[in-house]
Amino acid sequence: MKLLRFGEKGQEKPGVLDTQGTIRSLEGVVNDVDGSLLADLSVLDGVDFDSLPKVDANTRFAPCVANPSKFLCIGLNYADHAAESGMPLPPEPEVFTKAVSAVSGANDDIEKPRNSEKLDWEVELAIVIGKECKYVDEADAMDYIAGYCVCNDVSERNFQLERGSQWDKGKGCDTFGPIGPYLVTKDEVTDPCNLPMWLEVNGKRYQNGNTNTMVFKPAFLVSYLSQFMSLKPGDVISTGTPPGVGLGQTPPVYLNEGDVIELGIEGLGQQKQVVVAAK
Amino acid sequence: MKLLRFGEKGQEKPGVLDTQGTIRSLEGVVNDVDGSLLADLSVLDGVDFDSLPKVDANTRFAPCVANPSKFLCIGLNYADHAAESGMPLPPEPEVFTKAVSAVSGANDDIEKPRNSEKLDWEVELAIVIGKECKYVDEADAMDYIAGYCVCNDVSERNFQLERGSQWDKGKGCDTFGPIGPYLVTKDEVTDPCNLPMWLEVNGKRYQNGNTNTMVFKPAFLVSYLSQFMSLKPGDVISTGTPPGVGLGQTPPVYLNEGDVIELGIEGLGQQKQVVVAAK
Repeated sequence: MKLLRFGEKGQEKPGVLDTQGTIRSLEGVVNDVDGSLLADLSVLDGVDFDSLPKVDANTRFAPCVANPSKFLCIGLNYADHAAESGMPLPPEPEVFTKAVSAVSGANDDIEKPRNSEKLDWEVELAIVIGKECKYVDEADAMDYIAGYCVCNDVSERNFQLERGSQWDKGKGCDTFGPIGPYLVTKDEVTDPCNLPMWLEVNGKRYQNGNTNTMVFKPAFLVSYLSQFMSLKPGDVISTGTPPGVGLGQTPPVYLNEGDVIELGIEGLGQQKQVVVAAK
Repeated sequence: MKLLRFGEKGQEKPGVLDTQGTIRSLEGVVNDVDGSLLADLSVLDGVDFDSLPKVDANTRFAPCVANPSKFLCIGLNYADHAAESGMPLPPEPEVFTKAVSAVSGANDDIEKPRNSEKLDWEVELAIVIGKECKYVDEADAMDYIAGYCVCNDVSERNFQLERGSQWDKGKGCDTFGPIGPYLVTKDEVTDPCNLPMWLEVNGKRYQNGNTNTMVFKPAFLVSYLSQFMSLKPGDVISTGTPPGVGLGQTPPVYLNEGDVIELGIEGLGQQKQVVVAAK
Protein backbone atom coordinates (compact mmCIF):
# COMPACT_ATOMS: atom_id res chain seq x y z
CA MET A 1 0.00 0.00 0.00
CA LYS A 2 0.96 3.57 -0.61
CA LEU A 3 -0.63 5.50 2.23
CA LEU A 4 -0.68 9.27 2.15
CA ARG A 5 -2.23 12.38 3.56
CA PHE A 6 -3.63 15.14 1.36
CA GLY A 7 -5.06 18.61 1.61
CA GLU A 8 -4.10 21.98 2.96
CA LYS A 9 -2.33 22.51 6.27
CA GLY A 10 -4.61 21.92 9.21
CA GLN A 11 -7.14 20.13 7.00
CA GLU A 12 -5.20 17.03 6.02
CA LYS A 13 -7.13 13.88 5.24
CA PRO A 14 -5.98 10.27 4.93
CA GLY A 15 -5.62 8.73 1.49
CA VAL A 16 -4.16 5.89 -0.49
CA LEU A 17 -3.07 5.19 -4.05
CA ASP A 18 -5.34 2.75 -5.88
CA THR A 19 -4.19 0.02 -8.29
CA GLN A 20 -3.90 2.62 -11.09
CA GLY A 21 -1.91 5.08 -9.00
CA THR A 22 -4.88 7.41 -8.53
CA ILE A 23 -5.25 9.13 -5.16
CA ARG A 24 -8.30 7.94 -3.25
CA SER A 25 -9.66 9.32 0.00
CA LEU A 26 -9.71 7.17 3.12
CA GLU A 27 -11.92 9.68 4.90
CA GLY A 28 -14.54 7.81 6.87
CA VAL A 29 -12.49 4.62 6.65
CA VAL A 30 -9.68 5.65 8.99
CA ASN A 31 -9.16 8.77 11.09
CA ASP A 32 -5.69 9.54 9.82
CA VAL A 33 -2.44 7.97 8.68
CA ASP A 34 -0.83 8.03 12.09
CA GLY A 35 0.74 5.76 14.66
CA SER A 36 -2.62 4.39 15.63
CA LEU A 37 -3.36 3.22 12.07
CA LEU A 38 0.17 1.93 11.48
CA ALA A 39 -0.05 -0.16 14.66
CA ASP A 40 -2.97 -2.05 13.14
CA LEU A 41 -3.18 -1.90 9.37
CA SER A 42 -5.64 -4.79 9.43
CA VAL A 43 -8.46 -2.22 9.57
CA LEU A 44 -7.74 -1.75 5.84
CA ASP A 45 -8.12 -5.46 5.06
CA GLY A 46 -10.84 -5.98 2.53
CA VAL A 47 -11.23 -2.28 1.68
CA ASP A 48 -11.56 -1.89 -2.09
CA PHE A 49 -9.36 1.15 -2.72
CA ASP A 50 -10.56 1.44 -6.33
CA SER A 51 -14.06 2.17 -5.09
CA LEU A 52 -13.09 4.99 -2.73
CA PRO A 53 -13.68 8.65 -3.71
CA LYS A 54 -11.09 10.00 -6.15
CA VAL A 55 -9.01 12.98 -5.08
CA ASP A 56 -7.85 15.79 -7.36
CA ALA A 57 -4.42 14.80 -8.67
CA ASN A 58 -3.18 18.34 -7.95
CA THR A 59 -3.88 18.07 -4.25
CA ARG A 60 -1.12 18.91 -1.80
CA PHE A 61 0.74 15.93 -0.42
CA ALA A 62 0.79 16.49 3.33
CA PRO A 63 3.44 14.77 5.49
CA CYS A 64 2.76 11.06 4.93
CA VAL A 65 2.55 10.34 8.67
CA ALA A 66 0.61 12.55 11.06
CA ASN A 67 2.25 13.74 14.26
CA PRO A 68 5.26 11.47 14.62
CA SER A 69 6.34 11.63 18.26
CA LYS A 70 10.02 11.33 17.31
CA PHE A 71 12.04 12.08 14.19
CA LEU A 72 15.41 10.44 14.67
CA CYS A 73 18.20 10.71 12.14
CA ILE A 74 21.35 8.74 11.49
CA GLY A 75 24.46 10.71 10.58
CA LEU A 76 27.30 9.66 8.31
CA ASN A 77 25.71 6.33 7.36
CA TYR A 78 27.26 6.19 3.89
CA ALA A 79 31.03 5.82 3.84
CA ASP A 80 31.59 8.17 0.92
CA HIS A 81 29.31 10.85 2.42
CA ALA A 82 31.34 10.75 5.64
CA ALA A 83 34.46 11.25 3.53
CA GLU A 84 33.00 14.25 1.67
CA SER A 85 31.97 15.77 5.02
CA GLY A 86 35.52 15.42 6.28
CA MET A 87 34.36 13.21 9.15
CA PRO A 88 35.45 9.69 10.11
CA LEU A 89 33.01 6.85 9.58
CA PRO A 90 31.49 6.23 13.02
CA PRO A 91 32.00 2.77 14.55
CA GLU A 92 28.34 2.72 15.56
CA PRO A 93 25.41 4.87 14.41
CA GLU A 94 25.61 8.60 15.05
CA VAL A 95 22.14 9.65 16.21
CA PHE A 96 20.63 13.10 16.25
CA THR A 97 17.11 14.50 16.33
CA LYS A 98 15.03 16.56 13.96
CA ALA A 99 12.35 18.63 15.70
CA VAL A 100 8.89 17.34 14.77
CA SER A 101 7.90 20.95 14.04
CA ALA A 102 10.16 20.60 10.98
CA VAL A 103 7.94 17.96 9.37
CA SER A 104 6.47 19.09 6.07
CA GLY A 105 4.87 17.79 2.90
CA ALA A 106 6.84 16.31 0.02
CA ASN A 107 6.39 19.33 -2.22
CA ASP A 108 6.02 22.09 0.34
CA ASP A 109 8.34 25.08 0.12
CA ILE A 110 11.56 24.88 2.09
CA GLU A 111 12.11 27.96 4.21
CA LYS A 112 15.60 29.39 4.23
CA PRO A 113 15.96 30.55 7.86
CA ARG A 114 17.01 34.08 8.68
CA ASN A 115 20.80 34.30 8.82
CA SER A 116 21.12 31.02 6.94
CA GLU A 117 24.30 30.94 4.87
CA LYS A 118 24.72 27.23 4.24
CA LEU A 119 21.38 25.62 3.41
CA ASP A 120 21.93 22.08 2.17
CA TRP A 121 20.07 18.98 1.00
CA GLU A 122 20.19 15.25 1.79
CA VAL A 123 18.05 12.61 0.08
CA GLU A 124 17.38 9.82 2.56
CA LEU A 125 15.43 6.63 3.02
CA ALA A 126 13.20 7.04 6.08
CA ILE A 127 11.80 4.17 8.12
CA VAL A 128 8.36 4.55 9.73
CA ILE A 129 7.75 2.49 12.86
CA GLY A 130 4.61 0.35 13.02
CA LYS A 131 4.72 -1.27 16.44
CA GLU A 132 6.15 -0.03 19.72
CA CYS A 133 9.46 -1.67 20.49
CA LYS A 134 12.28 -1.61 23.00
CA TYR A 135 15.31 -3.91 23.19
CA VAL A 136 14.31 -5.66 19.98
CA ASP A 137 16.78 -8.03 18.36
CA GLU A 138 17.99 -7.26 14.86
CA ALA A 139 16.49 -10.56 13.68
CA ASP A 140 13.04 -9.42 14.80
CA ALA A 141 13.36 -5.73 13.96
CA MET A 142 11.58 -5.86 10.61
CA ASP A 143 8.38 -6.82 12.45
CA TYR A 144 8.30 -3.33 13.94
CA ILE A 145 8.66 -1.40 10.69
CA ALA A 146 5.45 -0.22 9.00
CA GLY A 147 7.10 1.03 5.84
CA TYR A 148 9.36 3.55 4.19
CA CYS A 149 9.26 6.99 2.64
CA VAL A 150 11.49 9.56 0.99
CA CYS A 151 12.93 12.22 3.30
CA ASN A 152 14.90 15.33 2.48
CA ASP A 153 17.03 15.82 5.59
CA VAL A 154 17.37 19.56 4.96
CA SER A 155 20.32 20.96 6.90
CA GLU A 156 21.84 24.34 7.68
CA ARG A 157 25.55 23.60 7.91
CA ASN A 158 26.48 26.76 9.77
CA PHE A 159 23.81 26.13 12.41
CA GLN A 160 24.73 22.41 12.50
CA LEU A 161 28.49 22.49 12.55
CA GLU A 162 29.74 25.94 13.48
CA ARG A 163 27.43 26.94 16.32
CA GLY A 164 28.33 24.32 18.93
CA SER A 165 29.05 20.61 19.09
CA GLN A 166 25.49 19.37 18.74
CA TRP A 167 23.81 19.23 15.34
CA ASP A 168 20.12 19.57 16.23
CA LYS A 169 20.04 23.37 15.76
CA GLY A 170 20.85 22.94 12.09
CA LYS A 171 18.52 20.02 11.45
CA GLY A 172 15.18 20.97 12.98
CA CYS A 173 14.30 24.33 11.41
CA ASP A 174 10.72 24.64 10.17
CA THR A 175 10.19 22.83 6.83
CA PHE A 176 13.49 20.92 7.17
CA GLY A 177 11.69 17.56 7.21
CA PRO A 178 9.70 16.86 4.04
CA ILE A 179 8.44 13.26 4.25
CA GLY A 180 6.49 11.51 1.52
CA PRO A 181 4.74 11.76 -0.89
CA TYR A 182 3.59 8.41 0.49
CA LEU A 183 4.43 5.86 3.08
CA VAL A 184 5.02 2.62 1.20
CA THR A 185 4.23 -0.36 3.41
CA LYS A 186 7.10 -2.80 3.76
CA ASP A 187 5.34 -5.61 1.87
CA GLU A 188 5.79 -3.50 -1.28
CA VAL A 189 9.50 -2.85 -0.70
CA THR A 190 11.24 -6.07 -1.65
CA ASP A 191 14.68 -4.93 -0.57
CA PRO A 192 15.06 -1.60 1.26
CA CYS A 193 18.81 -2.09 0.98
CA ASN A 194 18.89 -1.90 -2.79
CA LEU A 195 17.01 1.23 -3.81
CA PRO A 196 18.42 3.78 -6.27
CA MET A 197 18.09 7.33 -4.94
CA TRP A 198 18.84 10.73 -6.43
CA LEU A 199 18.62 14.46 -5.88
CA GLU A 200 18.82 17.40 -8.29
CA VAL A 201 19.03 21.14 -7.71
CA ASN A 202 17.78 23.33 -10.55
CA GLY A 203 17.96 20.30 -12.83
CA LYS A 204 21.56 19.41 -12.03
CA ARG A 205 22.05 15.99 -10.47
CA TYR A 206 24.10 16.16 -7.28
CA GLN A 207 23.21 12.92 -5.53
CA ASN A 208 23.08 9.62 -7.34
CA GLY A 209 23.23 6.81 -4.84
CA ASN A 210 21.75 3.57 -3.72
CA THR A 211 20.75 2.35 -0.28
CA ASN A 212 23.03 -0.63 -0.95
CA THR A 213 25.98 1.47 0.25
CA MET A 214 24.40 2.20 3.64
CA VAL A 215 26.68 1.18 6.49
CA PHE A 216 24.00 0.40 9.09
CA LYS A 217 20.86 -1.13 7.56
CA PRO A 218 17.22 -0.58 8.62
CA ALA A 219 16.85 -3.74 10.75
CA PHE A 220 20.09 -2.99 12.55
CA LEU A 221 19.10 0.66 13.09
CA VAL A 222 15.71 -0.19 14.60
CA SER A 223 17.33 -2.72 16.91
CA TYR A 224 20.13 -0.30 17.79
CA LEU A 225 17.88 2.67 18.56
CA SER A 226 15.57 0.46 20.61
CA GLN A 227 18.49 -0.19 22.98
CA PHE A 228 18.34 3.49 23.91
CA MET A 229 14.65 4.33 23.85
CA SER A 230 11.18 3.02 23.06
CA LEU A 231 10.22 3.50 19.44
CA LYS A 232 6.54 4.29 18.95
CA PRO A 233 4.18 3.71 16.03
CA GLY A 234 4.56 6.60 13.60
CA ASP A 235 8.09 7.49 14.69
CA VAL A 236 10.33 8.35 11.75
CA ILE A 237 13.97 7.31 11.40
CA SER A 238 15.87 8.90 8.54
CA THR A 239 18.81 6.70 7.69
CA GLY A 240 21.49 8.99 6.30
CA THR A 241 22.44 10.30 2.90
CA PRO A 242 24.74 9.16 0.10
CA PRO A 243 27.44 11.49 -1.28
CA GLY A 244 26.67 14.63 -3.22
CA VAL A 245 25.47 17.14 -0.65
CA GLY A 246 26.25 20.81 -1.12
CA LEU A 247 28.86 20.81 1.63
CA GLY A 248 30.77 18.14 -0.30
CA GLN A 249 31.13 20.14 -3.51
CA THR A 250 34.36 21.96 -4.43
CA PRO A 251 33.70 24.76 -3.68
CA PRO A 252 30.60 24.04 -1.53
CA VAL A 253 27.22 24.81 -3.11
CA TYR A 254 24.37 26.04 -0.93
CA LEU A 255 20.70 26.73 -1.58
CA ASN A 256 19.22 30.15 -2.23
CA GLU A 257 15.69 31.46 -2.54
CA GLY A 258 14.13 30.30 -5.78
CA ASP A 259 16.20 27.14 -6.08
CA VAL A 260 14.27 24.01 -6.96
CA ILE A 261 15.12 20.68 -5.38
CA GLU A 262 13.87 17.41 -6.82
CA LEU A 263 14.61 14.07 -5.24
CA GLY A 264 13.36 10.53 -5.23
CA ILE A 265 13.89 6.91 -4.28
CA GLU A 266 12.87 4.07 -6.58
CA GLY A 267 9.46 2.75 -5.60
CA LEU A 268 8.90 5.41 -2.94
CA GLY A 269 8.06 8.40 -5.13
CA GLN A 270 9.48 11.85 -5.67
CA GLN A 271 9.57 15.21 -3.95
CA LYS A 272 9.94 18.73 -5.38
CA GLN A 273 10.59 21.78 -3.23
CA VAL A 274 11.20 25.46 -3.86
CA VAL A 275 13.38 27.45 -1.49
CA VAL A 276 11.70 30.57 -0.06
CA ALA A 277 12.56 33.06 2.66
CA ALA A 278 11.52 32.05 6.17
CA LYS A 279 8.28 33.58 7.31
CA MET B 1 -1.40 28.56 39.52
CA LYS B 2 0.16 25.22 40.08
CA LEU B 3 -1.22 23.03 37.32
CA LEU B 4 -0.64 19.31 37.40
CA ARG B 5 -1.74 15.97 36.06
CA PHE B 6 -2.55 13.05 38.31
CA GLY B 7 -3.43 9.38 38.11
CA GLU B 8 -1.98 6.19 36.72
CA LYS B 9 -0.30 5.96 33.33
CA GLY B 10 -2.78 6.16 30.50
CA GLN B 11 -5.47 7.52 32.84
CA GLU B 12 -4.03 10.88 33.71
CA LYS B 13 -6.39 13.68 34.61
CA PRO B 14 -5.85 17.43 34.86
CA GLY B 15 -5.56 19.01 38.29
CA VAL B 16 -4.50 22.08 40.21
CA LEU B 17 -3.38 22.97 43.72
CA ASP B 18 -5.92 25.00 45.66
CA THR B 19 -5.12 27.88 48.00
CA GLN B 20 -4.29 25.40 50.79
CA GLY B 21 -2.01 23.28 48.59
CA THR B 22 -4.58 20.49 48.26
CA ILE B 23 -4.83 18.73 44.91
CA ARG B 24 -8.12 19.40 43.16
CA SER B 25 -9.40 17.78 39.98
CA LEU B 26 -9.95 19.87 36.87
CA GLU B 27 -11.79 17.03 35.18
CA GLY B 28 -14.79 18.44 33.36
CA VAL B 29 -13.29 21.94 33.48
CA VAL B 30 -10.44 21.37 30.99
CA ASN B 31 -9.51 18.36 28.87
CA ASP B 32 -5.91 18.17 29.97
CA VAL B 33 -2.91 20.28 30.95
CA ASP B 34 -1.48 20.46 27.47
CA GLY B 35 -0.43 22.94 24.83
CA SER B 36 -4.01 23.74 24.02
CA LEU B 37 -4.77 24.79 27.62
CA LEU B 38 -1.48 26.65 28.04
CA ALA B 39 -2.18 28.65 24.89
CA ASP B 40 -5.29 30.05 26.55
CA LEU B 41 -5.29 29.88 30.33
CA SER B 42 -8.21 32.32 30.41
CA VAL B 43 -10.55 29.31 30.40
CA LEU B 44 -9.59 28.99 34.08
CA ASP B 45 -10.54 32.57 34.90
CA GLY B 46 -13.18 32.65 37.57
CA VAL B 47 -12.92 28.95 38.42
CA ASP B 48 -13.00 28.52 42.21
CA PHE B 49 -10.31 25.90 42.72
CA ASP B 50 -11.26 25.45 46.37
CA SER B 51 -14.67 24.14 45.31
CA LEU B 52 -13.36 21.50 42.89
CA PRO B 53 -13.30 17.80 43.90
CA LYS B 54 -10.39 16.90 46.19
CA VAL B 55 -7.91 14.32 45.00
CA ASP B 56 -6.20 11.72 47.22
CA ALA B 57 -2.90 13.28 48.36
CA ASN B 58 -1.14 10.00 47.55
CA THR B 59 -2.06 10.13 43.89
CA ARG B 60 0.69 9.75 41.31
CA PHE B 61 1.96 13.00 39.86
CA ALA B 62 1.92 12.43 36.10
CA PRO B 63 4.15 14.55 33.81
CA CYS B 64 2.90 18.10 34.44
CA VAL B 65 2.39 18.75 30.71
CA ALA B 66 0.72 16.24 28.40
CA ASN B 67 2.38 15.34 25.12
CA PRO B 68 4.96 18.07 24.62
CA SER B 69 5.89 18.06 20.93
CA LYS B 70 9.49 18.99 21.71
CA PHE B 71 11.75 18.57 24.73
CA LEU B 72 14.78 20.74 24.08
CA CYS B 73 17.70 20.94 26.46
CA ILE B 74 20.51 23.40 26.97
CA GLY B 75 23.92 21.97 27.73
CA LEU B 76 26.68 23.47 29.86
CA ASN B 77 24.62 26.49 30.90
CA TYR B 78 26.28 26.91 34.30
CA ALA B 79 29.94 27.89 34.15
CA ASP B 80 31.04 25.68 37.03
CA HIS B 81 29.15 22.66 35.65
CA ALA B 82 30.97 23.06 32.32
CA ALA B 83 34.23 23.09 34.26
CA GLU B 84 33.39 19.91 36.19
CA SER B 85 32.43 18.22 32.89
CA GLY B 86 35.81 19.12 31.45
CA MET B 87 34.18 21.12 28.66
CA PRO B 88 34.65 24.76 27.67
CA LEU B 89 31.79 27.17 28.33
CA PRO B 90 30.02 27.52 24.97
CA PRO B 91 29.90 31.01 23.43
CA GLU B 92 26.23 30.45 22.59
CA PRO B 93 23.74 27.86 23.87
CA GLU B 94 24.52 24.21 23.21
CA VAL B 95 21.21 22.61 22.22
CA PHE B 96 20.28 18.95 22.25
CA THR B 97 17.04 17.00 22.33
CA LYS B 98 15.45 14.64 24.80
CA ALA B 99 13.06 12.14 23.17
CA VAL B 100 9.49 12.87 24.28
CA SER B 101 9.14 9.14 25.04
CA ALA B 102 11.46 9.87 27.99
CA VAL B 103 8.92 12.12 29.71
CA SER B 104 7.81 10.78 33.08
CA GLY B 105 6.17 11.81 36.32
CA ALA B 106 8.00 13.62 39.12
CA ASN B 107 8.16 10.57 41.38
CA ASP B 108 8.13 7.76 38.82
CA ASP B 109 10.91 5.20 38.93
CA ILE B 110 13.95 5.92 36.79
CA GLU B 111 14.89 2.96 34.64
CA LYS B 112 18.57 2.11 34.43
CA PRO B 113 18.94 1.01 30.80
CA ARG B 114 20.51 -2.31 29.91
CA ASN B 115 24.28 -1.90 29.59
CA SER B 116 24.16 1.40 31.46
CA GLU B 117 27.37 2.01 33.37
CA LYS B 118 27.20 5.73 34.00
CA LEU B 119 23.69 6.77 35.00
CA ASP B 120 23.71 10.36 36.22
CA TRP B 121 21.42 13.12 37.47
CA GLU B 122 20.90 16.82 36.69
CA VAL B 123 18.45 19.08 38.51
CA GLU B 124 17.20 21.71 36.08
CA LEU B 125 14.74 24.54 35.72
CA ALA B 126 12.46 23.76 32.78
CA ILE B 127 10.51 26.34 30.82
CA VAL B 128 7.11 25.41 29.39
CA ILE B 129 6.02 27.32 26.30
CA GLY B 130 2.57 28.92 26.30
CA LYS B 131 2.26 30.52 22.90
CA GLU B 132 3.71 29.52 19.53
CA CYS B 133 6.67 31.68 18.60
CA LYS B 134 9.34 32.08 15.96
CA TYR B 135 11.92 34.84 15.64
CA VAL B 136 10.82 36.40 18.89
CA ASP B 137 12.95 39.17 20.40
CA GLU B 138 14.43 38.62 23.83
CA ALA B 139 12.47 41.63 25.10
CA ASP B 140 9.20 39.92 24.15
CA ALA B 141 10.15 36.35 24.95
CA MET B 142 8.54 36.19 28.40
CA ASP B 143 5.15 36.61 26.70
CA TYR B 144 5.57 33.14 25.21
CA ILE B 145 6.39 31.32 28.44
CA ALA B 146 3.50 29.64 30.28
CA GLY B 147 5.47 28.69 33.34
CA TYR B 148 8.20 26.58 34.89
CA CYS B 149 8.74 23.18 36.41
CA VAL B 150 11.43 21.02 37.94
CA CYS B 151 13.17 18.62 35.55
CA ASN B 152 15.66 15.87 36.27
CA ASP B 153 17.70 15.73 33.06
CA VAL B 154 18.67 12.10 33.66
CA SER B 155 21.72 11.19 31.57
CA GLU B 156 23.72 8.10 30.70
CA ARG B 157 27.24 9.44 30.30
CA ASN B 158 28.60 6.46 28.38
CA PHE B 159 25.74 6.65 25.87
CA GLN B 160 26.03 10.45 25.77
CA LEU B 161 29.75 11.00 25.53
CA GLU B 162 31.51 7.79 24.52
CA ARG B 163 29.26 6.41 21.79
CA GLY B 164 29.58 9.12 19.16
CA SER B 165 29.69 12.91 18.96
CA GLN B 166 25.99 13.56 19.49
CA TRP B 167 24.47 13.44 22.98
CA ASP B 168 20.84 12.50 22.26
CA LYS B 169 21.40 8.73 22.73
CA GLY B 170 22.30 9.29 26.36
CA LYS B 171 19.57 11.80 27.11
CA GLY B 172 16.37 10.30 25.73
CA CYS B 173 16.12 6.86 27.35
CA ASP B 174 12.70 5.98 28.75
CA THR B 175 12.04 7.70 32.13
CA PHE B 176 14.97 10.12 31.64
CA GLY B 177 12.64 13.13 31.70
CA PRO B 178 10.72 13.52 34.96
CA ILE B 179 8.88 16.87 34.83
CA GLY B 180 6.80 18.27 37.65
CA PRO B 181 5.22 17.76 40.13
CA TYR B 182 3.48 20.86 38.83
CA LEU B 183 3.77 23.52 36.21
CA VAL B 184 3.91 26.82 38.07
CA THR B 185 2.55 29.61 35.92
CA LYS B 186 4.95 32.48 35.42
CA ASP B 187 2.87 34.96 37.41
CA GLU B 188 3.80 32.97 40.53
CA VAL B 189 7.52 32.95 39.78
CA THR B 190 8.77 36.41 40.65
CA ASP B 191 12.29 35.84 39.39
CA PRO B 192 13.11 32.61 37.54
CA CYS B 193 16.74 33.70 37.63
CA ASN B 194 17.03 33.54 41.40
CA LEU B 195 15.74 30.15 42.50
CA PRO B 196 17.67 27.89 44.88
CA MET B 197 17.86 24.31 43.55
CA TRP B 198 19.22 21.10 45.02
CA LEU B 199 19.58 17.37 44.45
CA GLU B 200 20.37 14.53 46.84
CA VAL B 201 21.17 10.86 46.23
CA ASN B 202 20.44 8.52 49.12
CA GLY B 203 20.24 11.52 51.40
CA LYS B 204 23.60 13.00 50.42
CA ARG B 205 23.45 16.45 48.86
CA TYR B 206 25.33 16.61 45.56
CA GLN B 207 23.85 19.66 43.88
CA ASN B 208 23.27 22.90 45.69
CA GLY B 209 22.83 25.68 43.21
CA ASN B 210 20.79 28.63 42.18
CA THR B 211 19.44 29.65 38.80
CA ASN B 212 21.23 32.96 39.35
CA THR B 213 24.42 31.38 38.01
CA MET B 214 22.83 30.37 34.70
CA VAL B 215 24.77 31.75 31.75
CA PHE B 216 21.88 32.06 29.29
CA LYS B 217 18.61 33.06 30.97
CA PRO B 218 15.06 31.93 30.09
CA ALA B 219 14.07 34.96 27.98
CA PHE B 220 17.30 34.74 26.02
CA LEU B 221 16.90 30.99 25.51
CA VAL B 222 13.34 31.27 24.17
CA SER B 223 14.41 34.03 21.80
CA TYR B 224 17.53 32.09 20.77
CA LEU B 225 15.77 28.79 20.11
CA SER B 226 13.03 30.57 18.18
CA GLN B 227 15.68 31.69 15.67
CA PHE B 228 16.10 28.04 14.73
CA MET B 229 12.59 26.61 14.98
CA SER B 230 9.01 27.32 15.93
CA LEU B 231 8.31 26.71 19.59
CA LYS B 232 4.84 25.34 20.26
CA PRO B 233 2.55 25.53 23.30
CA GLY B 234 3.52 22.75 25.69
CA ASP B 235 7.10 22.44 24.43
CA VAL B 236 9.58 21.97 27.26
CA ILE B 237 13.01 23.60 27.43
CA SER B 238 15.28 22.36 30.20
CA THR B 239 17.84 24.99 30.90
CA GLY B 240 20.94 23.18 32.15
CA THR B 241 22.25 22.07 35.50
CA PRO B 242 24.47 23.59 38.18
CA PRO B 243 27.58 21.73 39.43
CA GLY B 244 27.43 18.51 41.39
CA VAL B 245 26.53 15.84 38.86
CA GLY B 246 27.92 12.33 39.29
CA LEU B 247 30.36 12.75 36.43
CA GLY B 248 31.91 15.70 38.23
CA GLN B 249 32.74 13.81 41.45
CA THR B 250 36.25 12.53 42.20
CA PRO B 251 36.02 9.68 41.48
CA PRO B 252 32.76 9.86 39.50
CA VAL B 253 29.62 8.55 41.23
CA TYR B 254 26.91 6.87 39.17
CA LEU B 255 23.44 5.59 40.01
CA ASN B 256 22.57 1.97 40.71
CA GLU B 257 19.33 0.10 41.19
CA GLY B 258 17.76 1.00 44.51
CA ASP B 259 19.30 4.45 44.71
CA VAL B 260 16.91 7.22 45.71
CA ILE B 261 17.14 10.67 44.10
CA GLU B 262 15.43 13.69 45.61
CA LEU B 263 15.53 17.10 44.00
CA GLY B 264 13.73 20.39 44.06
CA ILE B 265 13.62 24.03 43.09
CA GLU B 266 12.26 26.68 45.45
CA GLY B 267 8.63 27.42 44.66
CA LEU B 268 8.39 24.70 42.01
CA GLY B 269 8.15 21.62 44.23
CA GLN B 270 10.15 18.46 44.69
CA GLN B 271 10.70 15.13 42.94
CA LYS B 272 11.71 11.75 44.34
CA GLN B 273 12.75 8.83 42.16
CA VAL B 274 13.98 5.30 42.75
CA VAL B 275 16.34 3.68 40.25
CA VAL B 276 15.12 0.34 38.91
CA ALA B 277 16.25 -2.00 36.13
CA ALA B 278 14.89 -1.17 32.68
CA LYS B 279 11.87 -3.23 31.71
